[in-house]
Amino acid sequence: MAYQPIRIGIVGGTGYTGVELLRLLAAHPAAELAVITSRKDAGMPVSGMFPNLRGRVDLTFTEPDVKALTACDLVFFATPNGIAMQEAAELLNAGTRVIDLAADFRIKDIAEWERWYGMTHASPQLVAQAVYGLPEVNREAIRKALLVANPGCYPTAVQLGFMPLLRAGVVATEALIADCKSGVSGAGRKAEIPALMAEAADNFKAYGVPGHRHLPEIRQGLAAMAAKPVGLTFVPHLTPLIRGIHATLYARLTDPSVDLQSLFEQTYAGESFVDVLPAGSHPETRSVRGANTCRIAVHRPQGGDTVVVLSAIDNLVKGAAGQAVQNMNLMFGLPETLGIDGIALLP
Amino acid sequence: MAYQPIRIGIVGGTGYTGVELLRLLAAHPAAELAVITSRKDAGMPVSGMFPNLRGRVDLTFTEPDVKALTACDLVFFATPNGIAMQEAAELLNAGTRVIDLAADFRIKDIAEWERWYGMTHASPQLVAQAVYGLPEVNREAIRKALLVANPGCYPTAVQLGFMPLLRAGVVATEALIADCKSGVSGAGRKAEIPALMAEAADNFKAYGVPGHRHLPEIRQGLAAMAAKPVGLTFVPHLTPLIRGIHATLYARLTDPSVDLQSLFEQTYAGESFVDVLPAGSHPETRSVRGANTCRIAVHRPQGGDTVVVLSAIDNLVKGAAGQAVQNMNLMFGLPETLGIDGIALLP
Amino acid sequence: MAYQPIRIGIVGGTGYTGVELLRLLAAHPAAELAVITSRKDAGMPVSGMFPNLRGRVDLTFTEPDVKALTACDLVFFATPNGIAMQEAAELLNAGTRVIDLAADFRIKDIAEWERWYGMTHASPQLVAQAVYGLPEVNREAIRKALLVANPGCYPTAVQLGFMPLLRAGVVATEALIADCKSGVSGAGRKAEIPALMAEAADNFKAYGVPGHRHLPEIRQGLAAMAAKPVGLTFVPHLTPLIRGIHATLYARLTDPSVDLQSLFEQTYAGESFVDVLPAGSHPETRSVRGANTCRIAVHRPQGGDTVVVLSAIDNLVKGAAGQAVQNMNLMFGLPETLGIDGIALLP
Amino acid sequence: MAYQPIRIGIVGGTGYTGVELLRLLAAHPAAELAVITSRKDAGMPVSGMFPNLRGRVDLTFTEPDVKALTACDLVFFATPNGIAMQEAAELLNAGTRVIDLAADFRIKDIAEWERWYGMTHASPQLVAQAVYGLPEVNREAIRKALLVANPGCYPTAVQLGFMPLLRAGVVATEALIADCKSGVSGAGRKAEIPALMAEAADNFKAYGVPGHRHLPEIRQGLAAMAAKPVGLTFVPHLTPLIRGIHATLYARLTDPSVDLQSLFEQTYAGESFVDVLPAGSHPETRSVRGANTCRIAVHRPQGGDTVVVLSAIDNLVKGAAGQAVQNMNLMFGLPETLGIDGIALLP
Repeated sequence: MAYQPIRIGIVGGTGYTGVELLRLLAAHPAAELAVITSRKDAGMPVSGMFPNLRGRVDLTFTEPDVKALTACDLVFFATPNGIAMQEAAELLNAGTRVIDLAADFRIKDIAEWERWYGMTHASPQLVAQAVYGLPEVNREAIRKALLVANPGCYPTAVQLGFMPLLRAGVVATEALIADCKSGVSGAGRKAEIPALMAEAADNFKAYGVPGHRHLPEIRQGLAAMAAKPVGLTFVPHLTPLIRGIHATLYARLTDPSVDLQSLFEQTYAGESFVDVLPAGSHPETRSVRGANTCRIAVHRPQGGDTVVVLSAIDNLVKGAAGQAVQNMNLMFGLPETLGIDGIALLP
Repeated sequence: MAYQPIRIGIVGGTGYTGVELLRLLAAHPAAELAVITSRKDAGMPVSGMFPNLRGRVDLTFTEPDVKALTACDLVFFATPNGIAMQEAAELLNAGTRVIDLAADFRIKDIAEWERWYGMTHASPQLVAQAVYGLPEVNREAIRKALLVANPGCYPTAVQLGFMPLLRAGVVATEALIADCKSGVSGAGRKAEIPALMAEAADNFKAYGVPGHRHLPEIRQGLAAMAAKPVGLTFVPHLTPLIRGIHATLYARLTDPSVDLQSLFEQTYAGESFVDVLPAGSHPETRSVRGANTCRIAVHRPQGGDTVVVLSAIDNLVKGAAGQAVQNMNLMFGLPETLGIDGIALLP
Repeated sequence: MAYQPIRIGIVGGTGYTGVELLRLLAAHPAAELAVITSRKDAGMPVSGMFPNLRGRVDLTFTEPDVKALTACDLVFFATPNGIAMQEAAELLNAGTRVIDLAADFRIKDIAEWERWYGMTHASPQLVAQAVYGLPEVNREAIRKALLVANPGCYPTAVQLGFMPLLRAGVVATEALIADCKSGVSGAGRKAEIPALMAEAADNFKAYGVPGHRHLPEIRQGLAAMAAKPVGLTFVPHLTPLIRGIHATLYARLTDPSVDLQSLFEQTYAGESFVDVLPAGSHPETRSVRGANTCRIAVHRPQGGDTVVVLSAIDNLVKGAAGQAVQNMNLMFGLPETLGIDGIALLP
Repeated sequence: MAYQPIRIGIVGGTGYTGVELLRLLAAHPAAELAVITSRKDAGMPVSGMFPNLRGRVDLTFTEPDVKALTACDLVFFATPNGIAMQEAAELLNAGTRVIDLAADFRIKDIAEWERWYGMTHASPQLVAQAVYGLPEVNREAIRKALLVANPGCYPTAVQLGFMPLLRAGVVATEALIADCKSGVSGAGRKAEIPALMAEAADNFKAYGVPGHRHLPEIRQGLAAMAAKPVGLTFVPHLTPLIRGIHATLYARLTDPSVDLQSLFEQTYAGESFVDVLPAGSHPETRSVRGANTCRIAVHRPQGGDTVVVLSAIDNLVKGAAGQAVQNMNLMFGLPETLGIDGIALLP
């Protein structure tokens, strides 16, 4: 089947979400990669930076150029935080739709955003307009959105894991715990010593325990599900794998009669990208390596009143580029799974 | 475009070449997975063993059953050495084509095969009939083949690396060296202590230096290219990565006037799955992770008379399952790249 | 300084705790390695199995032989669960002291032990006599012990992390959470598919969420510290590193006025092997790789009422062999740090 | 036994050879760590940068200060190339001995050095005076040396592997091949993208095939052994492990009657840090992880005329800091193995 091509621009794209976006879009039946910009690497062929794209992506990084971008139907921002908020308005005004893979439009409370991100927000009015791009929560709004704030990686894994419990109102909401483990690609393609292989391999550590920027984003999402504020302790860890996030979630059950397995299966019954595992299972990050799937299992150890949810995604796919393409599909009326139904690579 | 479905059976398939074959065939537009057999795991759903296939492969392992297999158009053997040679004849007689991913039909010299594999060959007559499934060498014969011997992983990387030099007759053939490094999936999905992560991770070693079964297979292929016997030292190493083979090949140049870069580019000009890198490059195994591509670079350090060829493949794709599907495509008149044009996963 | 040599026997010793015990004892100034037994590998030189010991350990595995063992001053059992309980009595009767690195003597409630370990206990009377070998808890009893039950790896990390809070009575004890991550050597040197590098590398998963054998051991220890039963949710995870356990512990603070940093520093002020990091720190497993140290940090994110403790050990050293030698030192009146003061290997 | 303390200074020391030197010297019975300098990190406690040293090294990085350094008996330069050549003279003039772990004094041919290192040499006269610190080659000269050029990591592994063959004159010297594989710590503790874990893990590649700075160093050493110039092809590879170098060496045998195993065993009969494995063996890098040992095996595959030598070291120990301490021991009349006899960490 032939699809009407969507003309696509990418701003940034020299990081890991960038190369993953390129991998997915290069094989997407409705995507036409038109332009990719990078101030720093202008002139370099994309496949010179990312050798997996040799023979598949012919683009060259170019200087940022508004005209080239507004000629696109859709622009993805795969930039550091703080860029899209400066450039999105012009594109939107020209009728180009925007998906931001950074954090600029994720948090509705501007003051909260400014506190965590340490800068003044350049376009608060767009934050109000932006749709938070978690399809399992906001599918209909995404279909009509002009500007989508693509969720963070941890927030995707944690929100999908807690959603059934919070919507059903069966857990105490004042002391939720999200113990999360991320692969090193989550830190981005940045030359920093702690991310060196000689530092990060064969090593495990927590980081950001006093506070991590994904905390307010997760809290906002969980509060919406619970329809009231929630208390959340969020502890991220760096784990020596390349791709993958595993969230281990803890909550106190307030309704011990609930059938947790059914609750989870029913909540996600119609979802293409959330897989509730059979009772007693443990999802593995490799089972979603390269795939847009979130695999979830729910446990109630020893029949006590603590619920344990295990949620695994590929941080670069369902946690970033794959979810962005899922949002693109929704925004452009395409089948939701188009071009993002690749099977995970195992082993 | 709709393809006539090819009815496919898999014998074995509980190993890594098996899961990789399933990953590729489950998404192949012309493949209809009909049956997969495993004596040991009969009754287990395939996706219970390989969680990446959940929701994508509904098959259950069944007891070996000749009738079910002869009802297929094509049967892949993803079994240990020594199985296909006992079962292929019956399938071929029934008109079912066969691709063996093990070593049973790779070596034409039966005595040599028996010496290296330590068993009596059960069907020497089929060896004569079998086509060695390296498309870059044997494409036309593969198109007409009823029985294909799919090459080993090391032999694929080494033969593709040496081929331009040997065909052009520009190197001394009596002292070729192939220093090869393999990821741990090359050892198969077998419960053996040296393959434990606590043994193999953060470790590097050679193995099988006195002699490895892929030596006679490589030697046979190189001799055909050189049109005379060759002397080869082959040293395999176990390297702590999951997928990937990197062959570093050394030969003494006898014709110093040859333009090596052009020679390699011309040799592989029409090939979809061999990528000759620009002069001065170094292929990385991750640039072919999950892809059916062999990336090659050729060097002549300090302008001396030693040629160094670097050849990288994914041992489970171009080195096994991907090449098997490439052979299937050729045997059934399909576009050669159909279903095996996935882009490598990087990072 | 010259020490009176302790004549030492090891039963088992073909696993990872075995090789680590040998590494430590071979360089211990007061240890004389006299005999090491292994039914399966009798006749094999120890250094043939563990090449790091070449030139340093001349022993050969021998058939189990009570006479050789009772001629020792001390016997370590580095055997699977269920062996020491059958053999310890005879050694103890002969005046040989015993340290069991397995679980046979760790749990005082025999019925509880039998339920979790699935066997009938062969010597319940010795369980009563055995001293649980966590020196930071039981130092004086260990000095006089004839039979020491060396703690499990997870239990060491978790108990040391919770101890200051429970002894001080500043947290709610009914809903403690221990989210623990272990390297693959924790699974032992056993040929099993899930422990293959091709399965466990670049992968992260929880396991045993419904119930893990270390749960009752931890619960028993925490209850003693709290002087009342505790509620504990314990979730172990397999993480792709070779050595290391990281425990992330959660508890609800009942006394918000407590100075957590001081509490931890004071608790461990005199301890050689527990290092309380400065406020705001995150211990890394590599900072204890090969060392007998437990590094701990305590946090109170956003000043809320959830305490987060981070506790890191090397599962084979402070979590097994190193702690066993620490116990040996105490039992034989030696300096507690003798032979186990090696500095961690980083990177 | 009490040793006269050697007062030691370290210039640099914020890299991996630095932390390894500190690990070894902190536990060395004759070393007194007096001063460690780093312009960039002056004021930071050493253990704040390297958490494995907490409680074991109390030093703080200080501004470079000649007076503090000349008050030392021995100064190690653990600096980038080009620093020691500027500062060594002043220390030597003051009577302080110097060991340079960088490349400044390794190559006798100044022009050759300047070509490969791309700078003008600041003290050619010291190059003539410096002793190349490979004890198995130069032991007696090292004992008397005031200035030692500590060998590179690759050069150590390659020279020890080829030495028996070259000294005995049993191989052709015009076409030696050294196919070498290094762990990522060999690239140093530098914030560079190719060394990120997300780039280097689960990946394998050659690098520097057109030319690597260790080539002239190795060639110089091999020529001395052969007593004539040698032809060498040197191909380094980056392999996803933290520590370890494995050299696979190829040479054509000119004297087929030689007993290779005996030749190697006899050559290294009296050496504490070279371990010739039994015939048929394959050394593993993990068998020397953290140890100052080089393990070597020699093969003659299929009885042909190609000799294959396998040589494994820890690049940070025998390939850098351990060898430097071995040189220190020789220079100061101490037992050669003092403080560097730690057993390798396995697993």
